[in-house]
Amino acid sequence: MSDWLKLIPAAEARRILSEVEPIGMEHVPLRQAAGRVLAVSLTAPHDLPLTRLSAMDGYAVRARDVQAAMSISAAGPAEASLRVVGAIAAGTTFAGTVNPGEAVGIATGGVLPDGADAVLMVELASLVGDPGASASAGAMVDGYVQPGSRLRPTRLLVAGDNVVRPGEDITAGARLLPAGRRLRAVDLAALASFGVVDVPVYRRPLIAVLATGSEICPPDQAPRPGQVRDSNQYVLAAAVGSAGGIAVAGGIVGDDAGLLQAAVARLLAASDGVILSGGSSVGPKDLTARVLDALGPPGVLFHGIDIRPGKPTVFGRVGPKPLIGMPGFPSSSTVVFEAFVRPLLARLGGETVPGPWPAAISARLTRAYQKPASREDYLRVRLDERDGELWADALPGGSFAISTLIVADGLARIPAGQDRLEPGAPVAVRRFI
Amino acid sequence: MSDWLKLIPAAEARRILSEVEPIGMEHVPLRQAAGRVLAVSLTAPHDLPLTRLSAMDGYAVRARDVQAAMSISAAGPAEASLRVVGAIAAGTTFAGTVNPGEAVGIATGGVLPDGADAVLMVELASLVGDPGASASAGAMVDGYVQPGSRLRPTRLLVAGDNVVRPGEDITAGARLLPAGRRLRAVDLAALASFGVVDVPVYRRPLIAVLATGSEICPPDQAPRPGQVRDSNQYVLAAAVGSAGGIAVAGGIVGDDAGLLQAAVARLLAASDGVILSGGSSVGPKDLTARVLDALGPPGVLFHGIDIRPGKPTVFGRVGPKPLIGMPGFPSSSTVVFEAFVRPLLARLGGETVPGPWPAAISARLTRAYQKPASREDYLRVRLDERDGELWADALPGGSFAISTLIVADGLARIPAGQDRLEPGAPVAVRRFI
Repeated sequence: MSDWLKLIPAAEARRILSEVEPIGMEHVPLRQAAGRVLAVSLTAPHDLPLTRLSAMDGYAVRARDVQAAMSISAAGPAEASLRVVGAIAAGTTFAGTVNPGEAVGIATGGVLPDGADAVLMVELASLVGDPGASASAGAMVDGYVQPGSRLRPTRLLVAGDNVVRPGEDITAGARLLPAGRRLRAVDLAALASFGVVDVPVYRRPLIAVLATGSEICPPDQAPRPGQVRDSNQYVLAAAVGSAGGIAVAGGIVGDDAGLLQAAVARLLAASDGVILSGGSSVGPKDLTARVLDALGPPGVLFHGIDIRPGKPTVFGRVGPKPLIGMPGFPSSSTVVFEAFVRPLLARLGGETVPGPWPAAISARLTRAYQKPASREDYLRVRLDERDGELWADALPGGSFAISTLIVADGLARIPAGQDRLEPGAPVAVRRFI
Repeated sequence: MSDWLKLIPAAEARRILSEVEPIGMEHVPLRQAAGRVLAVSLTAPHDLPLTRLSAMDGYAVRARDVQAAMSISAAGPAEASLRVVGAIAAGTTFAGTVNPGEAVGIATGGVLPDGADAVLMVELASLVGDPGASASAGAMVDGYVQPGSRLRPTRLLVAGDNVVRPGEDITAGARLLPAGRRLRAVDLAALASFGVVDVPVYRRPLIAVLATGSEICPPDQAPRPGQVRDSNQYVLAAAVGSAGGIAVAGGIVGDDAGLLQAAVARLLAASDGVILSGGSSVGPKDLTARVLDALGPPGVLFHGIDIRPGKPTVFGRVGPKPLIGMPGFPSSSTVVFEAFVRPLLARLGGETVPGPWPAAISARLTRAYQKPASREDYLRVRLDERDGELWADALPGGSFAISTLIVADGLARIPAGQDRLEPGAPVAVRRFI
C-alpha cells in the first residue's frame, strides 16, 4: 500500500483537522445541559449572594453586644446575656431590626437582619436559667427557644464573623464559564444560581458511521467463510457518543465505488460528517479517497499519517463537512479515533481543545520502546499502581487483535521527536471510556 | 448541629453503603451497550479468527517455494518466480489449492487458501518481465496482475509469516468480559465479533432527586428576599446520569414533615432510590432522618460521617431502596456524591467498584494541609502540570462557594490516617465530569 500513501506528520494532520468549524448552536433546558458545550461565555448578572447571609446555624447578633456580655459576665447572669426576640423561618426575612442586646435565631443561609453584624454559632450559646437545655437551632426551629429567652455567649465575636458578604462568592460581572467549555455537573450550579435555565450550547455533531468492505457482515449474522462480523461500526458509534456526537447508523457497503458514493452522499446530506470504517481489504481504502474526491471540493486533504498504528487514514471535506476513512484493524481504528477523530468531533461540537492528548495521565513504561523519531506511536497499555507510582505495560498483539483492546486500560502516546524510551520513561496515557 | 450527629468513620460509612444489591438486569441492543454494566461474564464461544487469515496485502504462497525461487535466482528469471493463479475477492474464499510454484492474490483479512502457508507482502514481490510495473494489491484488485503473471519474491519467508492462526486473537472458552464491567466503546468489538447483539446488562438505577427546604425556589424564578435558587438538584441529577443512573426530577418540598414524607414515599415507589438535597436550613436535615425512619425498616443506618466537608449526611434504606440525605452546601453535596453516592449508584447498577477512590490520578499538593488523623477530607483542587509533574492546588472558599467548584478541576482525597501533608505530598485526585 505504500505506493499510494503520502504520509504526513501527525502534527500536520492535526493542523488540517483543526480547520473545521463548530456546526451551530441551540438552546437546551438546564436539566439537559451537562456534557454539552457552552456556546456563549457567561458572566455573573448580579452578586452572589445578593444579600448578607448567615454561614452557620445560630443567632444574628451585634458583635459588640457579645463582647460586652462577655466582659461583664462576672457582674451577673442577666447583664451577661442577649434576649432572643424572634427567629427567621426558612425562606423569609426578619421584619424588624436587631437592637442592642437582642438576638434573632437564624439558620445557615438565612438573610442577616438589619442591625446584626455577626452570627453567634448555636454551639457557642447557652440558655440562661436552664443550663441543661439545648439552644440548638433544631430546638429553635421547633419553637423551644421562645422569644424572650436569654442566651449567654461562650466565645467572643467580631463583626462579620459567620456572615457571608454580598458578592463574596461571585461578584456581578465576574466571568463564570467560557464558551467552548464542556459543562460538568458542578458547572450547572452556576447556571442554576443565576437562573440560566435555557442554556446556549453548540449542537451535537450528527456523525454517520459506515462500514465498508465486501467481506463485512452484520454481527447478528453467522459469517460465511471469508466474511467477518462488523465490529468497528459499533465501537466507532459508541466512541462518537462519548465524544459528544450523535452516531447515525450508516450500514455496510461493499467494495463498489458507485454504491459507496451513493451511500456517502446520502449520509453526508443528512449529517454533519461521515466516518467510513475501512474493511481490512485494500479496495475500500482506495475507494474512500476516490469517493471523497468525487463528492465535491475540497476533497481529500491528506491520505496517510506518519503514525503507528493507523497509518492508512484518509481525511477530507465536502464543503464544511468532514469525511474520515478509518483503517480497518480494530486497534488502528481506535487509535485514529482517540488521537484524531475525538478532537475533530470536539471542535465540530464547539469545544475548546487544549492540546493533542488532553487530560492524559502520566505513567512510566515498564519496558523499553523504540521507534523512528519522526513517527508518532500509540501503545495499548495496562496500568498498574506499584509503590504509589503508575506503570504502563505495553501489550503485545497485532493491530487486528481484539483481545488486546479489551484488556487494555488505554493508550499511551509516544510523540514524534522521541525515538528510544528506556524502562521507567514517562508516557502520557488516556484511559478508554 | 453536633448534638444530633453521631459521626462514623468514612470507612464504616462505605461498608454500610456497600450492602446494597444490584437492582436487576435487562437486555439491550449492541448499539446501546456502551456505558452499561455487563450482567453476565462472557466467554468466547469459538476461536477468533475461525480460520487462517492473511495479516497483509499480498500473495498466499508456500514458503518453501519462495525459498526455492530465491536460492536459484541466479539460474534465470523464469525459475525464480511464482505463477499467479488467481486472487481472492473480499468476502469469498479461494476454491482450489495453492500448488507448488503458485501464488494467489490475497488482501489483509482474507482466508488463506489450502496449500499456502505464508503470505508474501505485496511490497516484497515484483512482476517478472515488467520491472517498472506495480505488483501492488490495489493494482491486483483492479485486475492488473492477471492470472498467469509471474512474481519474483525479494525477501525470504518461513511458514506462518504474515498469517494469523485460528484462535490467535481469542481461543474458544477464553474469558472475554467479566460481569460487573462497565462497557467501554472498545469492549463492543468483542461483543460484535462473537455476535452478542442482545447484551445482558444491569438496569440503570432510577434515582429521584428532591430538593428540600422552605427557602428553595426553582431556578426559573426570581428569588424573593430569604429565598435561594435550587442548584443542587440540577448538579445531583447530572451527576446521577454520569454515574450510570437515570435521574427523576423530584421537585422542591418545604420544611414540612408530612409533605416531605408523602413526597418521598411517592418517589420511592416509582424509583430505585431517593436523594434528598438538604436545604441549607436546619429543618430539612433533621426531617430527612425522621421521614426515613417513618417510611419503614431498616430506616436510618447512619447520620453523620467523619469527613469534611459533608459531615451531616444521612443514609438509610426503606427495604432494599437507599435514601440519602445530602448536605445543602454545594461543595459538601458534591463531595458526598463523589465519595459515597457515586460508588453506591455503581453498586446498585451492578458495577464492580474497585476501591474508595477509583481511577484517581496522583498529584502533588502545592501547600501543606493539616487535619485530624481520624477524619477524611476532600479538597477542591486545580491541577497544573509543571516540569512534567501534576500539582494540585487546593482552592480556598467556604463550602457554600459555587465560584470554587466551577474553577476546580476535581477533588483530592485525604484519607483517614493522614494528619499532616507537607508541600509536595502526593494526593489522589479525581477530575469532575
